Amino acid sequence: MTEGETVVRKRALSATKAEEIQAVEKKVRNNQPDKPCHRPRDSLFTWNSGFTNFTGFINWAFLILSIGGLRLLLENFIKYGVRVDPIQWIYYLIDEEGSDYPTLMLLLYHIVPVVTCLIIEKALSAEVVSNGIGMLVHVANLLSVILVPMVFIHVKPGFGLVGASTVCTFYSILFLKMWSYIQVNMWCRMDRQKSAKSTLRRQSVSLSSLQRAEKTINNNQDSEKSSSETLPGGLVHYPENVSLRDFYYFMFVPTLCYELNFPRTERIRKRFLLRRAFEVLVGTQIILAVIQQWMIPSVKNSLVPFSNMDYTLATERLLKLAIPNHLAWLIMFYILFHSWLNLLGEVLQFADRNFYADWWNAENIDVFWRTWNLPVHRWAIRHLYLPMVDLGYGRNTASMVVFFISAFFHEYMVSVPLKTYKIWAFMGMMGQLPLSFLSRFVEKRYGGRFGNIVVWSSIIIGQPLCIMMYYHDYMVIHHGTAIAGYSHR
Amino acid sequence: MTEGETVVRKRALSATKAEEIQAVEKKVRNNQPDKPCHRPRDSLFTWNSGFTNFTGFINWAFLILSIGGLRLLLENFIKYGVRVDPIQWIYYLIDEEGSDYPTLMLLLYHIVPVVTCLIIEKALSAEVVSNGIGMLVHVANLLSVILVPMVFIHVKPGFGLVGASTVCTFYSILFLKMWSYIQVNMWCRMDRQKSAKSTLRRQSVSLSSLQRAEKTINNNQDSEKSSSETLPGGLVHYPENVSLRDFYYFMFVPTLCYELNFPRTERIRKRFLLRRAFEVLVGTQIILAVIQQWMIPSVKNSLVPFSNMDYTLATERLLKLAIPNHLAWLIMFYILFHSWLNLLGEVLQFADRNFYADWWNAENIDVFWRTWNLPVHRWAIRHLYLPMVDLGYGRNTASMVVFFISAFFHEYMVSVPLKTYKIWAFMGMMGQLPLSFLSRFVEKRYGGRFGNIVVWSSIIIGQPLCIMMYYHDYMVIHHGTAIAGYSHR
Repeated sequence: MTEGETVVRKRALSATKAEEIQAVEKKVRNNQPDKPCHRPRDSLFTWNSGFTNFTGFINWAFLILSIGGLRLLLENFIKYGVRVDPIQWIYYLIDEEGSDYPTLMLLLYHIVPVVTCLIIEKALSAEVVSNGIGMLVHVANLLSVILVPMVFIHVKPGFGLVGASTVCTFYSILFLKMWSYIQVNMWCRMDRQKSAKSTLRRQSVSLSSLQRAEKTINNNQDSEKSSSETLPGGLVHYPENVSLRDFYYFMFVPTLCYELNFPRTERIRKRFLLRRAFEVLVGTQIILAVIQQWMIPSVKNSLVPFSNMDYTLATERLLKLAIPNHLAWLIMFYILFHSWLNLLGEVLQFADRNFYADWWNAENIDVFWRTWNLPVHRWAIRHLYLPMVDLGYGRNTASMVVFFISAFFHEYMVSVPLKTYKIWAFMGMMGQLPLSFLSRFVEKRYGGRFGNIVVWSSIIIGQPLCIMMYYHDYMVIHHGTAIAGYSHR
Repeated sequence: MTEGETVVRKRALSATKAEEIQAVEKKVRNNQPDKPCHRPRDSLFTWNSGFTNFTGFINWAFLILSIGGLRLLLENFIKYGVRVDPIQWIYYLIDEEGSDYPTLMLLLYHIVPVVTCLIIEKALSAEVVSNGIGMLVHVANLLSVILVPMVFIHVKPGFGLVGASTVCTFYSILFLKMWSYIQVNMWCRMDRQKSAKSTLRRQSVSLSSLQRAEKTINNNQDSEKSSSETLPGGLVHYPENVSLRDFYYFMFVPTLCYELNFPRTERIRKRFLLRRAFEVLVGTQIILAVIQQWMIPSVKNSLVPFSNMDYTLATERLLKLAIPNHLAWLIMFYILFHSWLNLLGEVLQFADRNFYADWWNAENIDVFWRTWNLPVHRWAIRHLYLPMVDLGYGRNTASMVVFFISAFFHEYMVSVPLKTYKIWAFMGMMGQLPLSFLSRFVEKRYGGRFGNIVVWSSIIIGQPLCIMMYYHDYMVIHHGTAIAGYSHR
């Protein structure tokens, strides 16, 4: 029995008595001529000691990571030499040599669906065409936004991988923005019709939200009075907003949700702008370097183990790829969601910079998907989930629809540029369902910290697995089965 | 200017006014039919946001470490196969084949200096020999404890590396324990002489500490009364303690500081004992496996780069060795300072388990040296530093003497078993002086966290550097300059 235990038992009898005895014992010992220096104590790692300050091990972890990273970097340069070559990327960007710049052509083509969309909106706002016909043309136009790049990339030769990816990303964003634009204008038209019916109420109120209606009634006078006072130039009202200028502002602004009066900043902070621009330039170079120097050799070396189903070697390759891939993803996240979107926002004086929440603390997969990409999340809630719930669908149904459309776009942005119509990305998204159950189970059973670890694991391991699957299939499809020659480990 | 900045400036004028305007602006926007969803906000990574919760990245760091470690493990097994071979260690332990077990002989020889020491103490306590002569023989005996293994290992063939290391560690500990034993008995004799002179004071008081003397005067009666009540059997007084049995109890007890009445536990906790024993057995196997499977190939591969002064390759090898070496050191620390010393303490019912403090949080090198090895630290303070200060030496002089004796023992425990009298370990200890300045500078300039990182860096990098130096010199000395053949990377 240690001193700690003795004290506890004694305390149950009489705390003061035990303390007295202890004090006396100590005195007797201290009076001895051998200068006693020992007293009953537990080691810090023993549970009884109650010691919990292990913060030094956090510094340790980050230091070991840095040292390990530095070592891998050196090993890589010793093994492969310098493979970073910025020129190579320009070749990829301007498509294959001798081609008629299909990426540039396809990017310019976007004017067609945009102008089509605006013409329909003008016609609808002027009530030249009926709502039904207008919406039919809109849907056809939206489908063309998705299908045209898909067909072109598949049929036309000469697309570079980076060029094709850029096109697919661009048209996915265009699709979501146009959907939002059309829906918001529809809301405004519905509101105008209602206002026309109930002419008593001058201020336009959207009835879809009872709360807002209540507020309006309470503060109707206030708002009207202050509207001209506080907002310079006042608010833009429907249909003043339907113009090419307004649409292109929305096109470049870092959000997927259209509204008529975006919150604006008062001035452009030049130092902030320069910092973000610097981050974008340097960060991009780092990502490209990591891909060329570290990921491409790893992926190439994984080809044979994956083909031969050599599990030990394949796992080693997977873990080897996981680190640089994850590093590239983290830097990509920062420069895209922080530096680039803030840069756009600053230039266009767009005030809402809420592009991401603290997904790094997410304690289950669901929270991660709700927090890492707020522009898409906000779009999904505002333009898919809530309208479906308003239409009477159940919340679970609406969630599933959001999830499947998200899965479709993940597949679209990967498969089309690779011209490899495998379902790995889609499967990766579907894998989120059991993962969601697992992470919530772990969170409940073992606490938030372990839920967070499951989330991180799925991010770190899931992505490189999909990349290897795609690379393997891409090589098999486009270069036949003589793939052994590609490995030069 | 962001919303945050706007608010701050407005607040300077009138907090309530600004809030009113904001509230009104919000109402106007919310009453619009386009369901606005944006409001002025900063991104979380922007300093203005005031967001600081990045705890998820701590989980991330430990996860990445685990994944990286697993990958290295797999790579290692793929590259080298299974090299773990417990039998090999037994060969090392029982010395070279055909030899007459010199390790065992040398370990048994310790009875000679121990019995010599006890005979002198008996003679001194009985006042058969004078204090001067007794101390002279003690010093000669102590010197033999250090010199005999040194000479034997150098002269006699057949010592295994592990055997020789064990012998050196054992005799270093014996030296420190005997020093403590002799000094404490001397204190007791001095006290007895004083008591004999001042017979008025019945309770013996050590005058070296004023504080204790004061306490004694105040509580003299209390202590005498309670001494027989609380301590079963009462206290052992000088010279009752001078016996072989008492000395051997001190020999096995986990401390280097002798005292006549060690604090004792009431019983042996069997479950605690079994756990510590299990940790020692498993931990030792893990360390041996790490050394055989991971460190030895790394060290062997470092030989050629170190000989050729190829700095890039040598750095890569150094960092490669740093990780397994540090891992082995951490496990070694745990099983030696927690499991093994607690095991000894439990068996011998020794109650003071304060073998280490929280060195992992040390914010400069000095704190680390004061906290990682408390038995040695306590010995150095009690038997070297304080006696020197009492003799009138300055505190800095006493510190330097402690430091140099510590450096000597580090060198002794490495150079003698390796039979390579290079000064790398001594230099490593000397390197602690500039490191101490650096870490305290960093701590003051950049805060405790960065001081802690300097401490960790020196632990992680300093050790493998010394190991490589020794291995390089060992190979050059014992196997000539034809060392290129040893590398089979």
